[in-house]
Amino acid sequence: MRQSTTTLEVSTTCRSLIEITREVVRWAADQQIDTGMLTVFCRHTSASLLIQENAAREVRSDILDWLDRVAPEDGGWAHDDEGPDDMPAHLKAILTGVSLSIPVVNGHLALGTWQGIYLAEHRARPHRRQVVLHLIGE
Amino acid sequence: MRQSTTTLEVSTTCRSLIEITREVVRWAADQQIDTGMLTVFCRHTSASLLIQENAAREVRSDILDWLDRVAPEDGGWAHDDEGPDDMPAHLKAILTGVSLSIPVVNGHLALGTWQGIYLAEHRARPHRRQVVLHLIGE
Amino acid sequence: MRQSTTTLEVSTTCRSLIEITREVVRWAADQQIDTGMLTVFCRHTSASLLIQENAAREVRSDILDWLDRVAPEDGGWAHDDEGPDDMPAHLKAILTGVSLSIPVVNGHLALGTWQGIYLAEHRARPHRRQVVLHLIGE
Repeated sequence: MRQSTTTLEVSTTCRSLIEITREVVRWAADQQIDTGMLTVFCRHTSASLLIQENAAREVRSDILDWLDRVAPEDGGWAHDDEGPDDMPAHLKAILTGVSLSIPVVNGHLALGTWQGIYLAEHRARPHRRQVVLHLIGE
Repeated sequence: MRQSTTTLEVSTTCRSLIEITREVVRWAADQQIDTGMLTVFCRHTSASLLIQENAAREVRSDILDWLDRVAPEDGGWAHDDEGPDDMPAHLKAILTGVSLSIPVVNGHLALGTWQGIYLAEHRARPHRRQVVLHLIGE
Repeated sequence: MRQSTTTLEVSTTCRSLIEITREVVRWAADQQIDTGMLTVFCRHTSASLLIQENAAREVRSDILDWLDRVAPEDGGWAHDDEGPDDMPAHLKAILTGVSLSIPVVNGHLALGTWQGIYLAEHRARPHRRQVVLHLIGE
């Protein structure tokens, strides 16, 4: 049984979903694990991770719109030290989550045909985000 | 240290919560692991996983109603290629998530007394869904 | 490769977010694992786990307010055996989730600077909650 870890650095420019499937799949493949477990972990409280359709482009904008509705900027939040997008960003990160567990089976991540891995940037301004990958298996 | 994986096939008939606790617990028990980690992973973007009460039947219908309110069909979504339940299904999958991590302690899954594992089908029509199980331990 | 598990008992007094970062970090450190994977699992259906900012105190009250809005007590839920906070508690547990996966890198949990681990108690009355920790690595 072996383990590997790495950290992906993702530069974001605005509130958006940034697909990181290719980077994650490539790194996992490089570890040459046949059976194992991959964990993807986002080290932030105003950015998060989600798995969603990687085909239709409108899906991404609908997701961002929906997150805005569920956690609106005009929600009257007490915490607004860093502007109106601050607290909604935390709430969106809670809703979507910061860790994903994806099995590796027969040398491949068990992602479904339409599943892509996204880093969700919830802040309006550019940020540099860190995503930790951990793989265990053999 | 050992690993095992399998894939459960779950046939769904409509928007619903389908309990898979028994199948998951049975498979995990068959692996004869005393201490370990079980990962449950749903390979779809319009179906997902959740852990919830397995006693009162109204809980399930309330959950489905609530998901409909949070991600309504009449939300004016841009993505509706496959009908009005398409985009809400994606949003509900994001809200609930597609991976679960459950420890195995003293030969048993560490589920609480009232915790059941559910596959949540968010589409209106029947689908065949795949749930990957991965267990590591000894 | 080694594994360790333990169960944290957390006493709650009311609907609240209870930070358990210190207990989790201390236990993980005691296992003297250099590289590994920590799983945190909440054994309940009306309490859950989340990772969020551990600095500004208003963030916590905003999170609780937001959860009340998304899953309100006056939602007309069918399931109210244990009072009006019963079904909203289940819905909030679904939204936030009951398992977290956090890598261990260079002997430390890979939590970001501002990330704290919280047990979220969604019921109004006091409860005794169990959080299972599982660590694998070497």
